[in-house]
Amino acid sequence: MTTPLTGVVPPLLTPLTADGDLDVPSLERLVARHLEGGVDGLFALGSSGEIAFFDDARRAAVLEVVTGTVAGQVPVLAGVIDMQTDRVIQHVRAAERLDLAGYVVTAPFYAITGPQEIDTHFRAVAAAADAPIWAYDIPVCVHVKLSPAELAALGSDGVLTGVKDSSGDDVSFRRLAAINRAAGSPLTLLTGHEVVVDGAYLAGADGSVPGLGNVDPAGYVRMDRAARAGDWETVRAEQDRLAALFEIVFQPEGKAGPAAGVGAFKTALRELGVISTNTMSTPMSPIEGGAVDRIRAILADAGLLADA
Amino acid sequence: MTTPLTGVVPPLLTPLTADGDLDVPSLERLVARHLEGGVDGLFALGSSGEIAFFDDARRAAVLEVVTGTVAGQVPVLAGVIDMQTDRVIQHVRAAERLDLAGYVVTAPFYAITGPQEIDTHFRAVAAAADAPIWAYDIPVCVHVKLSPAELAALGSDGVLTGVKDSSGDDVSFRRLAAINRAAGSPLTLLTGHEVVVDGAYLAGADGSVPGLGNVDPAGYVRMDRAARAGDWETVRAEQDRLAALFEIVFQPEGKAGPAAGVGAFKTALRELGVISTNTMSTPMSPIEGGAVDRIRAILADAGLLADA
Amino acid sequence: MTTPLTGVVPPLLTPLTADGDLDVPSLERLVARHLEGGVDGLFALGSSGEIAFFDDARRAAVLEVVTGTVAGQVPVLAGVIDMQTDRVIQHVRAAERLDLAGYVVTAPFYAITGPQEIDTHFRAVAAAADAPIWAYDIPVCVHVKLSPAELAALGSDGVLTGVKDSSGDDVSFRRLAAINRAAGSPLTLLTGHEVVVDGAYLAGADGSVPGLGNVDPAGYVRMDRAARAGDWETVRAEQDRLAALFEIVFQPEGKAGPAAGVGAFKTALRELGVISTNTMSTPMSPIEGGAVDRIRAILADAGLLADA
Amino acid sequence: MTTPLTGVVPPLLTPLTADGDLDVPSLERLVARHLEGGVDGLFALGSSGEIAFFDDARRAAVLEVVTGTVAGQVPVLAGVIDMQTDRVIQHVRAAERLDLAGYVVTAPFYAITGPQEIDTHFRAVAAAADAPIWAYDIPVCVHVKLSPAELAALGSDGVLTGVKDSSGDDVSFRRLAAINRAAGSPLTLLTGHEVVVDGAYLAGADGSVPGLGNVDPAGYVRMDRAARAGDWETVRAEQDRLAALFEIVFQPEGKAGPAAGVGAFKTALRELGVISTNTMSTPMSPIEGGAVDRIRAILADAGLLADA
Repeated sequence: MTTPLTGVVPPLLTPLTADGDLDVPSLERLVARHLEGGVDGLFALGSSGEIAFFDDARRAAVLEVVTGTVAGQVPVLAGVIDMQTDRVIQHVRAAERLDLAGYVVTAPFYAITGPQEIDTHFRAVAAAADAPIWAYDIPVCVHVKLSPAELAALGSDGVLTGVKDSSGDDVSFRRLAAINRAAGSPLTLLTGHEVVVDGAYLAGADGSVPGLGNVDPAGYVRMDRAARAGDWETVRAEQDRLAALFEIVFQPEGKAGPAAGVGAFKTALRELGVISTNTMSTPMSPIEGGAVDRIRAILADAGLLADA
Repeated sequence: MTTPLTGVVPPLLTPLTADGDLDVPSLERLVARHLEGGVDGLFALGSSGEIAFFDDARRAAVLEVVTGTVAGQVPVLAGVIDMQTDRVIQHVRAAERLDLAGYVVTAPFYAITGPQEIDTHFRAVAAAADAPIWAYDIPVCVHVKLSPAELAALGSDGVLTGVKDSSGDDVSFRRLAAINRAAGSPLTLLTGHEVVVDGAYLAGADGSVPGLGNVDPAGYVRMDRAARAGDWETVRAEQDRLAALFEIVFQPEGKAGPAAGVGAFKTALRELGVISTNTMSTPMSPIEGGAVDRIRAILADAGLLADA
Repeated sequence: MTTPLTGVVPPLLTPLTADGDLDVPSLERLVARHLEGGVDGLFALGSSGEIAFFDDARRAAVLEVVTGTVAGQVPVLAGVIDMQTDRVIQHVRAAERLDLAGYVVTAPFYAITGPQEIDTHFRAVAAAADAPIWAYDIPVCVHVKLSPAELAALGSDGVLTGVKDSSGDDVSFRRLAAINRAAGSPLTLLTGHEVVVDGAYLAGADGSVPGLGNVDPAGYVRMDRAARAGDWETVRAEQDRLAALFEIVFQPEGKAGPAAGVGAFKTALRELGVISTNTMSTPMSPIEGGAVDRIRAILADAGLLADA
Repeated sequence: MTTPLTGVVPPLLTPLTADGDLDVPSLERLVARHLEGGVDGLFALGSSGEIAFFDDARRAAVLEVVTGTVAGQVPVLAGVIDMQTDRVIQHVRAAERLDLAGYVVTAPFYAITGPQEIDTHFRAVAAAADAPIWAYDIPVCVHVKLSPAELAALGSDGVLTGVKDSSGDDVSFRRLAAINRAAGSPLTLLTGHEVVVDGAYLAGADGSVPGLGNVDPAGYVRMDRAARAGDWETVRAEQDRLAALFEIVFQPEGKAGPAAGVGAFKTALRELGVISTNTMSTPMSPIEGGAVDRIRAILADAGLLADA
């Protein structure tokens, strides 16, 4: 068996050129920065990676570049997000020739499903996959919450190896951690909420999948190492600093969802010189004007940009 | 310009074999029955057509069979449902060699979008399409409601030719009808709610897209003709009969969404001898046991099945 | 037994003075106008009557004035809206010396309750009341939807005499009408959605509780009489006219809920000279500025105001 | 100025007799147990105190007993929960002769309100009150979320002295803590989520209002003292123990909301010999059967009950 993937596993952004094509050099630089920051793994093609906007060809291209650039230095998880089971399995099939440590799978969406269908879905995907399956609990996108008991049962049955919790429900996460522990910890638990990772560690998280980790991977790594060392004052201080940095996502006006959040991450990375543009997938438009200045000021406050 | 598509345009179910493959003979029989029933058009690959579960190959196969069987006797609309703009445009491209009267497009989903992104989305798809675009207002699946003002504006700008309203919001539908009328009726308005089509006609609907129309197309056609003739007592009586028939969707237990609703339609059509199985796409399971008997009894009450 | 209360039963607004006191002369004029308009009953202290904002003393004062002014000419229903069962029963007790034809009761709210608690709630209130109980299905306020089966069961058991449906769910209303009919019509069904009353009549409504009926009671009465006569073209035309009038509620900016809707009704009635002010209960502020002009213009278009 | 109220401030349950009357001796014993447990304050008439079910007389009786029993040993906050502003102010007036350290006020509910109305509401209540106002952010009951910026602004203006956060939104809580700190910490921040208090302390909470603190006040006090001492391993271990104890709320079947949660707390306290019955307010029924046994077993596991 492989070592469980714990620690900091940022959901990798996907840089685009001004024309909306995949910007391979920017993606390579972004990956390199994550590795230099000391991340424990990378999660390509998550929600922050704009997977919802990508066709099969672009998904393949992203994974090709990422696995090539990472070159086995850390494990790479791949999002295989699609509406229902068969398409998810197709994405798994398309990716299985690559060096991937696991697939990240949401509950089915668009068509409504109940507990029975969700159970069947995860079991079918796992049966078809050549690498471990992570459940991606993201009700804001799929509009269903995975229950702790359900997740732990799928873990005990060997269907799931871990959970990326982006549910925004810390009470449920605590329960999941307890139920999982009582079941012998079949699941690795990662939180997706970048401003409350400290509390998640106390609750039993094994690590995080912080979108903001694209902007400051080293900060999340420092927090993780402090948590492992039991140095909670450092954990808290680092989290407070990162929470202040997260304010970049509230600067855009008239934008919702990833157009604001991922858009702010991309704008920050452009200002930091890591990627070339802050272009977003259609139908989103990039952040412009005063919001860019405010993002620069926040980056400077966080010690990431010399001046603002 | 072509005549607007009004009247009864059922969202065509997609029959599957017991193994889950496309059941072409059943699909041909189902199409034939619709045409015999007198429908004014067909909408392939809608939510009731299980589009969320289908990959590109199956989508293409369904459209091939449907347009081939219909052979120009009535207009065929095709659902091009996917998460975000670029994939929707790909589905349009894949379908454009076929004889289609229009494409049916939802708001973007999975990734959250706001009014600006939704506007850009519809405009981008329309610009890329060779046939008219219908907006599919279905918040239960995409979790956003299209506003009447927004829809009417897109109609006036020539972006949209019509709306399939499955919003469940009859107050909003009335407003849409009024705003559209005030704008010179750029939009054709079809309701997707099969048990309240009579009220929708009074409110200003030009027709319906009734999932239940797969089970009783002739009933919906009779209601439509009566509405055009101003014979409202017949409209109401037919709608009451069809609403009683709709009770089939409440018979399954432990099933949610299309596993219950579309599953009931398929079960009814199997019992009526139109299609061969009531198989549903993974991860849904077919309706079995007592629910089948109850569905037979309802079909008999509605005069569609000799005995039950 | 008494005749069931059917037809037009507007939810009576509660006029206030500029200082926020109950404006008795305005209330008397408003009641008189309803009676002149030919309404079949009045519903005092509903959501449109600002009941949520009133203490026990004001509730009592309103009922006193209304029953006194109506003086038995039409039945009067009283809202007894409060968070949970015991307080609702207190409101019933406080009102029972007045000449009331029934009490209107919502599901419990604030504290979450399930089906069992809701059933107990309605049974307890009915057991304590000296007049028939109407269920008020208003999920936008209480955040729970009453199921058709549940309502019909309470009707068959003699707990409920009717339903005021403000659920915005016309599909559910059709089912309720059918289930009620199959049970021998124990319930009288009134719709609260003023712009789709025509469709509700087709679906089986026995009448309406239109907030907009405060502004144009005669219009709703004409529509009701036409529906009873089977003159659906008149029904539809009247409803279209009233739906256009309803646009007054969309004129205020920066206001939500009753501050916009009831505020628009009050503003219209002030402009029509029926009530003296458009004052709203704290914390709401009255409609001012351009919205007043736009409301006047809509009143003129509807033929209610000589000029605008 | 008084010292800010920080630390452990449990929302006091309200024991009832088997007949549903206020059980004064049980309430006195419960208060005494809290004081022995070392709590820093008590919050009477919160959601857990069944305030939604109580009329004015019972509210007064509860406050009388609580302030009398506490007799100034710790500060007492009183919930003044009602639908809209004027009734809330009435509850303040009714309580002002008692020795209260503050009033706890929710956003308006039942009638929909927007940001403007919510702002007016808090300002009007504060202007009318003789003691500090705490905002009670509880969207599960009032169906609106108070924004961090709004709360901090009300704090800076001297309208609010603190926030009881029962929003279940830890991301928003972290933002609130940061915005409040940046504004000079006008607000005292207490979390209402009893299973994630440890994370809330890291995020910047000044204390907690744990419903479960009725069952184990000493546990929450130990956690609080450990947090103040920076002994995070003890904090976490205590929180894990308390989270395991919280499983009592998941034992009842067929119950929702306080019938399950508060019902479980009352059942536990009855089994612990603190209160005499587990009677709940109408329309709720008490927990019976196997759930009681399971609750006893959990109490035993938590070291609170000798045997189970």
